[in-house]
Amino acid sequence: MKDAMTVISERKSVRKYTGELISKSDIERILKAAMAAPSAMHMLPWKFVVVSEPDTLKQLSAQLPFAQMLEKAGTAIVVCAVTEEAAGGNEAFAILDCACASENILLAAEALGLGAVWTAVYPDEQLMIAVRKVLNIPGDIIPLNIIPVGYPAGEERAQDKYNPVNIHWGKWS
Amino acid sequence: MKDAMTVISERKSVRKYTGELISKSDIERILKAAMAAPSAMHMLPWKFVVVSEPDTLKQLSAQLPFAQMLEKAGTAIVVCAVTEEAAGGNEAFAILDCACASENILLAAEALGLGAVWTAVYPDEQLMIAVRKVLNIPGDIIPLNIIPVGYPAGEERAQDKYNPVNIHWGKWS
Repeated sequence: MKDAMTVISERKSVRKYTGELISKSDIERILKAAMAAPSAMHMLPWKFVVVSEPDTLKQLSAQLPFAQMLEKAGTAIVVCAVTEEAAGGNEAFAILDCACASENILLAAEALGLGAVWTAVYPDEQLMIAVRKVLNIPGDIIPLNIIPVGYPAGEERAQDKYNPVNIHWGKWS
Repeated sequence: MKDAMTVISERKSVRKYTGELISKSDIERILKAAMAAPSAMHMLPWKFVVVSEPDTLKQLSAQLPFAQMLEKAGTAIVVCAVTEEAAGGNEAFAILDCACASENILLAAEALGLGAVWTAVYPDEQLMIAVRKVLNIPGDIIPLNIIPVGYPAGEERAQDKYNPVNIHWGKWS
């Protein structure tokens, strides 16, 4: 398996999949990585809905303009933020913690030779309502994103996004 | 170097440091990892302030109750979210993208045998104002966190936070 720095730099958004399904064991390894994320005050305010039923994937992709690849990927993870379980009951911490968990999912997929991509649900209220409805998610839970996971068709490559102009040494100015 | 899945599971919050300074080369490798994060619509709405001047670290730790370790770490990275450069000019996307960049920083530090910890600034308005003042950060920029990076004193261990109750298979209910 590749070292961590290589996986971080080679991770890319994969939107084309072969159609081969990933194993339950890989899903569990990916979710273990998700739950290894840091969280404010160690509150772990996250839940994960794993969707692989074709009709459910179809219903989701019908609602989400940027998630048309869900059916072909065959598996999707919906990262859900639970505000009332976050530090101070603060939505911002729930979102931040779940963003870190999501990044771990993307990296774990890359590490396992799989492909994934963050398709946004939050902060779009209409998309959140639609996803909650399809997946029976309670109204106080925030579906942050839908992450399809599958075998990449091999078309996407990581870009080098390093730009030293983004670094301020010492102070901003 | 350890493989990515190991680094993800072994990453922990390091709050005790030896005092030895990390190299500029390691800082740049860590920031390269940060900028490899995904971002909505590929907007890359992030900047990074690298602080190593002892007096500046002292000023920051004086303002931040959970960042008393900054001086001992010797180096700190402040991840800054730039709303006007985010997808749709949306603050939520700036925050999410910078959270992913922050998780990459934490993982890169672990991969390099260093220690780091996310100390929160956002969403606390008073802390954001204080950090902006010390570092001359413009008022429209969001200092998301301060991440000290240094050599770990070796006291902290990762916890196993995997909990299958957090997984919903198929639908939420």
